[in-house]
Amino acid sequence: MSELLDDERYAWAALTYLAEPGDPWLAELVRDCGPVQALAAIRAGRFPGGRRREAAERAMARWRLRLAGVPEPNEVAHHFARGIRLITAADAQWPDGLAELGVNQPYAIWLRGAATDLAALCRRSVAIVGSRAATAYGTYMATELAASVAARGWTVISGGAYGVDGAAHQGALAAPGATVAVMACGIDRAYPAGHTDLLDEVATAGAVISEWPPGQGVSRLRFLVRNRVIAAMARGCLVVEAGRRSGALNTARHARDLGRPLMALPGPVTSDLSAGCHSIIRDWQGTLVTSADEAIEALDRVGGAGVDGGAGGDVPSLPSRDPASLPFGVPAAQSPRDQPTREDAARDALDREAAAVLDALPGRGGLATSDIAARAGLEPGTVLARLAVLAVFGLAERTERGWRARRG
Amino acid sequence: MSELLDDERYAWAALTYLAEPGDPWLAELVRDCGPVQALAAIRAGRFPGGRRREAAERAMARWRLRLAGVPEPNEVAHHFARGIRLITAADAQWPDGLAELGVNQPYAIWLRGAATDLAALCRRSVAIVGSRAATAYGTYMATELAASVAARGWTVISGGAYGVDGAAHQGALAAPGATVAVMACGIDRAYPAGHTDLLDEVATAGAVISEWPPGQGVSRLRFLVRNRVIAAMARGCLVVEAGRRSGALNTARHARDLGRPLMALPGPVTSDLSAGCHSIIRDWQGTLVTSADEAIEALDRVGGAGVDGGAGGDVPSLPSRDPASLPFGVPAAQSPRDQPTREDAARDALDREAAAVLDALPGRGGLATSDIAARAGLEPGTVLARLAVLAVFGLAERTERGWRARRG
Repeated sequence: MSELLDDERYAWAALTYLAEPGDPWLAELVRDCGPVQALAAIRAGRFPGGRRREAAERAMARWRLRLAGVPEPNEVAHHFARGIRLITAADAQWPDGLAELGVNQPYAIWLRGAATDLAALCRRSVAIVGSRAATAYGTYMATELAASVAARGWTVISGGAYGVDGAAHQGALAAPGATVAVMACGIDRAYPAGHTDLLDEVATAGAVISEWPPGQGVSRLRFLVRNRVIAAMARGCLVVEAGRRSGALNTARHARDLGRPLMALPGPVTSDLSAGCHSIIRDWQGTLVTSADEAIEALDRVGGAGVDGGAGGDVPSLPSRDPASLPFGVPAAQSPRDQPTREDAARDALDREAAAVLDALPGRGGLATSDIAARAGLEPGTVLARLAVLAVFGLAERTERGWRARRG
Repeated sequence: MSELLDDERYAWAALTYLAEPGDPWLAELVRDCGPVQALAAIRAGRFPGGRRREAAERAMARWRLRLAGVPEPNEVAHHFARGIRLITAADAQWPDGLAELGVNQPYAIWLRGAATDLAALCRRSVAIVGSRAATAYGTYMATELAASVAARGWTVISGGAYGVDGAAHQGALAAPGATVAVMACGIDRAYPAGHTDLLDEVATAGAVISEWPPGQGVSRLRFLVRNRVIAAMARGCLVVEAGRRSGALNTARHARDLGRPLMALPGPVTSDLSAGCHSIIRDWQGTLVTSADEAIEALDRVGGAGVDGGAGGDVPSLPSRDPASLPFGVPAAQSPRDQPTREDAARDALDREAAAVLDALPGRGGLATSDIAARAGLEPGTVLARLAVLAVFGLAERTERGWRARRG
């Protein structure tokens, strides 16, 4: 171990390669015996104190499939030497709001950027999110709102994507103000590639963070899992433009479930990209905001993150999620007025394992079940069962070269 | 009296020439002794049973100033012969919702059109109102929403103006469905003149109605007084586009005060003409609606007019009006977020008499105090006092030829 890395930090780093973020079984294991012992237990394939109930043992099997991908300490130290950091709930700079995710709280966050204190950065922060395919109106308003709140000392948190997310980061940078990009891939990778320079600027003016270790790529499921972190870190969430099935509604739902002030920008009802925003206002009792002042007014209505019960209060039409299942079983962004296509409906019906298998499938060629299992972090038996389900839904097909995703 | 006209109906007709609509003193007089005796009392200049308190005596003096303008029975019979009707609260076709205006209820309504039963027409009705200077978006949506609700059997009530009002009538006509125009002038006059044909079509497919007798022109104050009737007759009120000082917000406020479902169409926050709509949703807890279905859903939430407490419920930021002062002391449309100009502020500060005097002033030339008194239906002493106030506010000036309004 180098001076940059002690056993404990290395163990945390290694665990981010083994378990997907928010895995409640890993959270339980680490809570019971700490990260170093947890890593040793996974390497040994045995829980301390002997066998656990079946679901935990299946998790253990899942983690062990990825053991070969865990880097050596010197590789991890190399990341740290490049200025990449890894923070955990034990660190003072761990954002307060994350604890409210309960067992689905991230167990570690990779970070690159100028931010020395992520917690301080998040104390007065707002998530500004929305559609990738934003209109000129949405792009303009995201930039304008982000610049205005940033100029008044609020950190703008978003997902680094094209459209509203990118405009929000750019607005905050122009203020100039602080901004944080929460990625669904490793922080050393730019997703989308077209935002390579933007993400570097975000790092300079704040932080680019991720629950996934360096080198990891995005997946459909990872975006959804990532969204809970955007919602939990920020004091409130403002959706600028969102279609009825936009991923931004998934972030909005997390914000609502966490009791964060939920806001949406109205737009022409003739624009599909304002339909999700209007749905938030109509059906989720989100606050209609037309300016940065109104957004800050809504954010300031709470003394601190999670104090307000307003946005997450009495919403009878949408049953509250079981917090323990948050990052799993989050099938897709859903507004109460969704008119899903048949394929969308099938996707939404997928459980967490099926979604992970689907994400692991190549679009062309084919992949062996064992490779899919390693990619998805699932046991081969689970993978086979889920492949069958996907085939029934018409989402996967078997070719001579193995399994692949089926389109359209 | 002809077969079309009995003493009572003639008395009602005459009273609409003498007192402005909603005058609570006239309502009291008619309640006490009926319309025929009330007319006789005004002609005699004496309340039955002797003198009343000072405010009532002032009202009496006001009414008597207009006695010369009351038509003979044969003139009134001539209107009736042309198909014009006069209905009162004693008639079965009197719309239910009007009674909720209390002492400010209209005492009679002039009507032309195919509608045989105005009450039935209003039972499933929605006011669709908005700015005269509507955008293409507002015009399109007003037409579309009106056509859709009319096609589903809802009567569209509006004010006959350019912009949103006209588009709403046209949409209802296109459906084809029923529509009612509530005028701020006599029903034999087209205001605006450009809507002469449209108002004729409205009469063919429903009714053109007014509290003012044939021949009377519009005034700023009359529009505001008229708005309470639109709000009270309809089961709910939908504002399509409205600036922050639009008259439509005045109608919306009446709807809210009457406990009617209040709805607004969102639009781009970059459009000043959606600012009033967003204010209704944000500050008045109005329902955001994006389609006719959603409007009908909100309207159907109440069993009938005035049953719902929702829209008019707990709105702490806006004190409820004293119903007795509704049509009087309604200075101008006001949203809680108005940024009034100096002249606007002055206008808003006017009491009912000052507003009436201002409306009676010519823009050019000049008018003697006695003529202003007759026009405004006020005693000369009151007129003089109010002219002084208006001069202080810079809204009126005295020239060699008398008093006139001062612009800019």
